[in-house]
Amino acid sequence: MANNKTEVRRILDKVKAEGRTSLTAPEGKLVCDAYGIPVPKEGVATSAADAAKLATGMGFPVVLKIVSPEILHKTEAGGVLVGVKSADEVQKGFDTIMANAKKYNAKANLLGVQVQQMLSGGQEVIVGAVTDPSFGKLVAFGLGGVLVEVLKDITFRLAPATREDALSMQDGIAAAAILKGVRGADPIDRESLARIIENVSLLVSDFPEIAEMDLNPVFATKNGATAADVRIVVDFKPVPPRYRPSHDDIVRDMNRIMKPDAVAVIGASSEDGKIGNSVMKNLINGGYKGEIYPINPSASEIMGRKAYKSVKDVPGKIDVAVFAIPAKFVPQALVEVGEKKIPGAVLIPSGFAETGNVAGQKEIVEIGHKYGVRLMGPNIYGFYYTWKNLCATFCTAYDVKGHAALSSQSGGIGMAIIGFSRSAKMGVSAIVGLGNKCDIDEDDLLTFFEQDDNTQIIAQHCEDLKDGRAFAEVAKRVSKKKPVVVLKAGRTAVGARAASSHTGALAGNDKIYEDVFKQSGVIRARSLRDLLEFARAIPVLPTPKGENVIIITGAGGSGVLLSDAVVDNGLTLMAMPPDLDAAFRKFIPPFGAAGNPVDITGGEPPKTYQNTIRLGLEDPRIHALILGYWHTIITPPMVFAKLASEVVEEMRAKGIDKPVVASLAGDVQVEEAAEYLFDHGIPAYPYSTEMPVAVLGAKYQWARGAGLI
Amino acid sequence: MANNKTEVRRILDKVKAEGRTSLTAPEGKLVCDAYGIPVPKEGVATSAADAAKLATGMGFPVVLKIVSPEILHKTEAGGVLVGVKSADEVQKGFDTIMANAKKYNAKANLLGVQVQQMLSGGQEVIVGAVTDPSFGKLVAFGLGGVLVEVLKDITFRLAPATREDALSMQDGIAAAAILKGVRGADPIDRESLARIIENVSLLVSDFPEIAEMDLNPVFATKNGATAADVRIVVDFKPVPPRYRPSHDDIVRDMNRIMKPDAVAVIGASSEDGKIGNSVMKNLINGGYKGEIYPINPSASEIMGRKAYKSVKDVPGKIDVAVFAIPAKFVPQALVEVGEKKIPGAVLIPSGFAETGNVAGQKEIVEIGHKYGVRLMGPNIYGFYYTWKNLCATFCTAYDVKGHAALSSQSGGIGMAIIGFSRSAKMGVSAIVGLGNKCDIDEDDLLTFFEQDDNTQIIAQHCEDLKDGRAFAEVAKRVSKKKPVVVLKAGRTAVGARAASSHTGALAGNDKIYEDVFKQSGVIRARSLRDLLEFARAIPVLPTPKGENVIIITGAGGSGVLLSDAVVDNGLTLMAMPPDLDAAFRKFIPPFGAAGNPVDITGGEPPKTYQNTIRLGLEDPRIHALILGYWHTIITPPMVFAKLASEVVEEMRAKGIDKPVVASLAGDVQVEEAAEYLFDHGIPAYPYSTEMPVAVLGAKYQWARGAGLI
Repeated sequence: MANNKTEVRRILDKVKAEGRTSLTAPEGKLVCDAYGIPVPKEGVATSAADAAKLATGMGFPVVLKIVSPEILHKTEAGGVLVGVKSADEVQKGFDTIMANAKKYNAKANLLGVQVQQMLSGGQEVIVGAVTDPSFGKLVAFGLGGVLVEVLKDITFRLAPATREDALSMQDGIAAAAILKGVRGADPIDRESLARIIENVSLLVSDFPEIAEMDLNPVFATKNGATAADVRIVVDFKPVPPRYRPSHDDIVRDMNRIMKPDAVAVIGASSEDGKIGNSVMKNLINGGYKGEIYPINPSASEIMGRKAYKSVKDVPGKIDVAVFAIPAKFVPQALVEVGEKKIPGAVLIPSGFAETGNVAGQKEIVEIGHKYGVRLMGPNIYGFYYTWKNLCATFCTAYDVKGHAALSSQSGGIGMAIIGFSRSAKMGVSAIVGLGNKCDIDEDDLLTFFEQDDNTQIIAQHCEDLKDGRAFAEVAKRVSKKKPVVVLKAGRTAVGARAASSHTGALAGNDKIYEDVFKQSGVIRARSLRDLLEFARAIPVLPTPKGENVIIITGAGGSGVLLSDAVVDNGLTLMAMPPDLDAAFRKFIPPFGAAGNPVDITGGEPPKTYQNTIRLGLEDPRIHALILGYWHTIITPPMVFAKLASEVVEEMRAKGIDKPVVASLAGDVQVEEAAEYLFDHGIPAYPYSTEMPVAVLGAKYQWARGAGLI
Repeated sequence: MANNKTEVRRILDKVKAEGRTSLTAPEGKLVCDAYGIPVPKEGVATSAADAAKLATGMGFPVVLKIVSPEILHKTEAGGVLVGVKSADEVQKGFDTIMANAKKYNAKANLLGVQVQQMLSGGQEVIVGAVTDPSFGKLVAFGLGGVLVEVLKDITFRLAPATREDALSMQDGIAAAAILKGVRGADPIDRESLARIIENVSLLVSDFPEIAEMDLNPVFATKNGATAADVRIVVDFKPVPPRYRPSHDDIVRDMNRIMKPDAVAVIGASSEDGKIGNSVMKNLINGGYKGEIYPINPSASEIMGRKAYKSVKDVPGKIDVAVFAIPAKFVPQALVEVGEKKIPGAVLIPSGFAETGNVAGQKEIVEIGHKYGVRLMGPNIYGFYYTWKNLCATFCTAYDVKGHAALSSQSGGIGMAIIGFSRSAKMGVSAIVGLGNKCDIDEDDLLTFFEQDDNTQIIAQHCEDLKDGRAFAEVAKRVSKKKPVVVLKAGRTAVGARAASSHTGALAGNDKIYEDVFKQSGVIRARSLRDLLEFARAIPVLPTPKGENVIIITGAGGSGVLLSDAVVDNGLTLMAMPPDLDAAFRKFIPPFGAAGNPVDITGGEPPKTYQNTIRLGLEDPRIHALILGYWHTIITPPMVFAKLASEVVEEMRAKGIDKPVVASLAGDVQVEEAAEYLFDHGIPAYPYSTEMPVAVLGAKYQWARGAGLI
């Protein structure tokens, strides 16, 4: 059934014409009718007798509610009576409500009393819609009563939501089991409820002026779902569209910026300690092979290269200009960059919005738009693109090539990324500072890395998303191809306040981030360390082909902790088939435990690890292995590391490639063993039973989101 | 009002005499009356007319319920009618219920129908009691309806519970806000509800034969609380008392075992690779200064020491015997240890309960009891006590003296403890393997470490507690003096299954562990890494004197993540008083952010860190500092580490000692800086914004539990 947009438009036009910000209940009902959202039988009575007649027509019990555009919170006003059971009671109720409403707000325009068929039975749920400054229209779902109010057990999806989204929302709340029927109650009609969710999400998408909508409660029964109460708030102020280049333009410009053939350094300097000097050194010593043009009005040569007064004086084409000059000189230089048709400016300088200089930031944004120059920053450390040996930054050089692309909103976090990467010998394709994000943001980077063959995983730290909707759209597409991991800082109220004071970030409702990330296939890192470890381990692991995980452990104690971690990380321990159980038992001592974990016991020689790991890889019913190693004299750490790597490589040669991770319990020699294992494709961690399972869990989360399992 | 034990005894005797396992509703009511638990007015009717008369007497509405010892789940049987509003309805209801009950269970003995005053309004809650195999009697509390059933929002305390326990339970559920009144509802009468909780807990403690008790629902209003339904299940099987030496005996024996003057090694060997050889080597090379007596029937000398055929042949006193012989020889040797009056046996051998040899384990336990020999293990790596240079283990020696005492149920986890300790240069007082815990367990260790001057923190890994009640009692006392950290493995259903197969551990209901740990002042580690990091950092940190935490950060981005971590770890960012805010502002650039976090911004020289840290320590309103360092050329990592350490030491010299932790964002040099800071009393972590706050949070949790803040 097609939705009746004309009818909704008519109603909204009337509301707008009358200068109202909300719809009356009868208007709300008409809107619901137009979008196929079931509502109870009802009518508006202007007299007690009228009310009684209406009620008798629809059958008892009924609900009586005041109708007044000025009274939004009807219960508070004493304007609601439920369970009214006879014509006589209805007459009395009418009078009571009108009197209460008058007392509550003497100026309110009382249009009458709504008489409504009273719904009962089934489960009370809430369906709503909100407008978020970053994500735009979202549809919300939760259970009625205290669950939403006290426990905040609510879930969101970007509107419009698909049928799958609408169904997944019904599993996305903590109290989901209630909808399936508890204590002998009937399960609710999921499809009917999903249709309401879908239609609400369509409605607010079709009519952006609907700022908020609440169906509370919706009675969901085994035979359907009906919205008992409708509240619609409107806002007719037009929302200015966000500047957003086309996909092709982003790809073209970002490729020139990230993989430039020629770089200009505006504010290049020969003087040690100057940022313009650090940038020059990093470019040259980093081994960048393209052209480097120092720009400095008062020098003819810098670090052995001819210097120019302006980028406009450079004879050749320039792909990106790195700014190392004070904020106040940026606008003029940026105009010259624009006139030179350079597609990108890397704005290292601080002194813009983050210090209160909002006007200065607005000015450069406008210049950027005018000339089509994409701006990175301002207030950043710059960026690295290792496969071009490019260190366009004033920090230390970084040159370990790899396949993880990282970015951070904050410079401090960027330095932590660099330190961790170097310490863990993590190869990266790029490290990018985004700072104030006045233009280039996370979705631009995703768009670039999506098509960058040197990048296999994208890990991003952010304090907000300037355009959450654009991010979600791009992430949804990109995450199908490459894992996207995000650490969203400002998760808590206290953190959000700090973010707002740090970068002016609008941290927003964290539950919305949580749900939208999930909807977009984004893996959410819970901590800085997780972001870094995921970036390091996920590209090393092959994609699992199914959900059957087994633990093979020498240390029974590790087996228990690894099992806890399996649950924590949303993985599933395979129920061991009897034949496979028997096959494992052949290799382990009689007092070892097969089942899952396979406990080979501590005193076993290398052969036992070897045989069981090989069996785990060979059997096609098993999809991933978690190894628990226990340091003993009989199987020392490096012996274990080598044998595990050998078996994994032997199987890879046969075309069997399953994710394998390892937890190493032992003396300090396990640290060397962990490094060896990591180098051989087995993410391994000493003194931790959590991290190996967390990285495997992250890989699985990605594979599921991308539809690969 | 004293509880009427005689009355309860009379009722229970009757139930026992009649061979029943549960009480009827009227019996339940009498028990409640005897213990001051308010219940509604009620009576039992044996005819419809009778029921109507009773109901009219107590006023409508009423509830009707079947009375039958065979029908426990009355609703399921169609044996309950609520909201019965007139004498006529009561008569009909009586007949319906009797008919339903007969249909449900034709053999049930129907004693009549209970007519009960119907309670309404207020909040429905549940108070109950259960009997746990490890913890014994526990009182439980939760909200009625789906919250307990679906969300498992329930909290436990050991019975008997104090008034404080009972009040804390009302804050201990996720939906606690509901009790305080939401949406204009009245807050409930906390004291009345607490009295019910207390009395239930007293009742089950006074009468251990009450196995289960359920008051469901209890109607809690602003004026009181009344239990609408009572269910009591009894079990008259006597529980055998657990073997438990007196506190003084434990202290005396554990001191001789842990700090022995003479050690016998049963199964000592000169042959490389034998466990008895490793133990000898570790004792000798570890630098142990006491007597070492090798015991071996077929050697006269081992490693330069006279060997004896039996401990009975040793002329002097022996404090502990380390067993390095196969399981089958243990019982005989243990008898000899008993006859020699050695107070402790360290049973390294495996091959007991963990391999199914339950009888063998029972045998040695009986020998231990008979001779008063305390048994450590079996199936362990042994133990270390560094302050005696004692390595009574077959693993590698460990000799970094310190103040953390660690133990593990599993050998693999023990090896992880050793590896981590060595890698992190963590000083320990002891590392102990507990294995099968046939005798010595966590509470024996707590009792020893409580009075051990070399120990400042006790960190334990366990898969179960053989006697949770004893543990809780000891932990509650010990944790007032020294922090006790526990990693309980088998937290999840999957982990619990693995634990059961690993050590036969009865992992139990994790929520009970959670609540009892909290009630006992125990800090719960969520991961192996947390256990280790807490053990390392907590003794380094001084005890905070109040809740006001501030963050001083160079990296704004770290400030945001640190703020999130503050919330995650139950800490409170101080609301910055205006004068203090102004004082900080004097030291930081105008675009830096005071408030809290104090964002000094990235480009600042050492002086800024110095000034702000000093101010943070000097101002008495501030109780703890979290530092966020950002690696820059102007303030390199070691410069920061030294200045921060200097300021902290300068203040300590003035008698100001506050906990300070640091998160270091930067290139690899921050690793050296972190080590330096740690050595100078500032737990510091590179590339992590979570761990520094987690260890501070753990210290706070301890200080609060011990009543120090």
